[in-house]
Amino acid sequence: MEISFVKGHGTENDFVLVPDANGRLELGEDQVRFLCDRRAGLGADGVIRVVRTDATDDPAAVEQREQAEWFMDYRNADGSLSQMCGNGVRVLGLYLATHADVDPRSPLPIATRAGLRTLTFAEDGITVDMGGATVLAETKIGVGERSWPATHVETGNPHAVVLVDDLAEAGDLLEPPAYDAQAYPGGVNVEFVTRRGEAHIAMRVHERGSGETRSCGTGACAAVVAAMLTDDAARNTAYTVDVPGGTLQVTWTDEAGGDRLLLTGPAVLVAEGLVELAQ
Amino acid sequence: MEISFVKGHGTENDFVLVPDANGRLELGEDQVRFLCDRRAGLGADGVIRVVRTDATDDPAAVEQREQAEWFMDYRNADGSLSQMCGNGVRVLGLYLATHADVDPRSPLPIATRAGLRTLTFAEDGITVDMGGATVLAETKIGVGERSWPATHVETGNPHAVVLVDDLAEAGDLLEPPAYDAQAYPGGVNVEFVTRRGEAHIAMRVHERGSGETRSCGTGACAAVVAAMLTDDAARNTAYTVDVPGGTLQVTWTDEAGGDRLLLTGPAVLVAEGLVELAQ
Repeated sequence: MEISFVKGHGTENDFVLVPDANGRLELGEDQVRFLCDRRAGLGADGVIRVVRTDATDDPAAVEQREQAEWFMDYRNADGSLSQMCGNGVRVLGLYLATHADVDPRSPLPIATRAGLRTLTFAEDGITVDMGGATVLAETKIGVGERSWPATHVETGNPHAVVLVDDLAEAGDLLEPPAYDAQAYPGGVNVEFVTRRGEAHIAMRVHERGSGETRSCGTGACAAVVAAMLTDDAARNTAYTVDVPGGTLQVTWTDEAGGDRLLLTGPAVLVAEGLVELAQ
Repeated sequence: MEISFVKGHGTENDFVLVPDANGRLELGEDQVRFLCDRRAGLGADGVIRVVRTDATDDPAAVEQREQAEWFMDYRNADGSLSQMCGNGVRVLGLYLATHADVDPRSPLPIATRAGLRTLTFAEDGITVDMGGATVLAETKIGVGERSWPATHVETGNPHAVVLVDDLAEAGDLLEPPAYDAQAYPGGVNVEFVTRRGEAHIAMRVHERGSGETRSCGTGACAAVVAAMLTDDAARNTAYTVDVPGGTLQVTWTDEAGGDRLLLTGPAVLVAEGLVELAQ
């Protein structure tokens, strides 16, 4: 079976988008794994099926039908369902602004499994209102023989943020870090974060289901929350976050509309065409 | 600039094919690196520009114009020119048989920088006549603290074949192995080879310019030559070569036409479309 695809990335966190406005595709786990396979398939950190909220019976889409026309059906590279990705949703927004009947001069609401996300388009990037953060009890993360205290932050996805002096401390991250399965029954994304300057941090991230990636939007938000709490920093400061694949901005704001995280970064569409699904 | 591409693989050695029958494209090193970038671009072990021999002034193509209609303009992932790839030439053959005016019932000659290669199509795969092998003086290969004697075999590309008891001996191969720069002034592909049974070997390969890959056609040929010389095996035996991305067959023959290597394996076209060249 041949299907359409678009390949894109945000700070080198890359995605295969599968246009499916009318919900005619059933994308199984094997097919998602094939699409994400970097040698035998197309290759990506995840797949985003682009479907109208009224054309899928995914409970999250059904619930947000009145707020959003489009649903982000996001899957990890291992085929599992995922909630949200702050880089992926920008790439999805750019796709809709260039390929669908979406006007980038207005805010664009997107339904996701983590709830509604609103995009605004500007020349220096696309900003996503990522909603609020929930900070839970301190937890622990291990890599090999080492372990660190970590801040448990939920920003649509579950995160554990480890502050380190040097990002190399995390080693090669070829295996998932050890975590507390009671705190994270569905797995965890782990951020290793170091300071670069005033309101400026750098991070590496290991995403559940995908391995180490070059960027993670919800992870950048969680990293800024953990850094600001440690610094006892005032809200509404724009933080710069260096990730291996580029640079993001995160502002933890309490202005107009209450406590929420605004994530700004680039989005790029690289290629589009037809892919032959092996299964 | 938007250009057409086809993504395909042979035993998971993957390629971006760039159709350019009439030689209108100048693909610079930056553009090849971008196409091969697995996060920011499309992702591949190499790029094959598909051009008619009479539409390019590459000296190899000019020399082979009377023997072959098509030239394999092969580049490594780092942008450098490459001579030949036994997996890539099968993928190129499948592309020509499905997209160009090429009849797969007849042998198909392809001009390459390593000389003419002739393909034959069968149900169980595509066979490439890889030409002869040149065996040179024994050499040495090192990884970290370890080093091994190696057989220097030229099969279109320069190879060093190391026989090991266990493929894990080579470690993670994240860095290029150390080699004798006098023996290999243009760099070397290194194969680590172990026995699996009668006329059956397994190998890992580190390709210059690309890192460890899931398969290498000229490397499988070099590995079989080294194994047969060590075994003092009779010619014309079909060897099975397990590579990380699948299985190849190699026959070192001295029948009809003299000493040469016949490589048989699968080829798959995965996707095609348009890619936006960043540079």
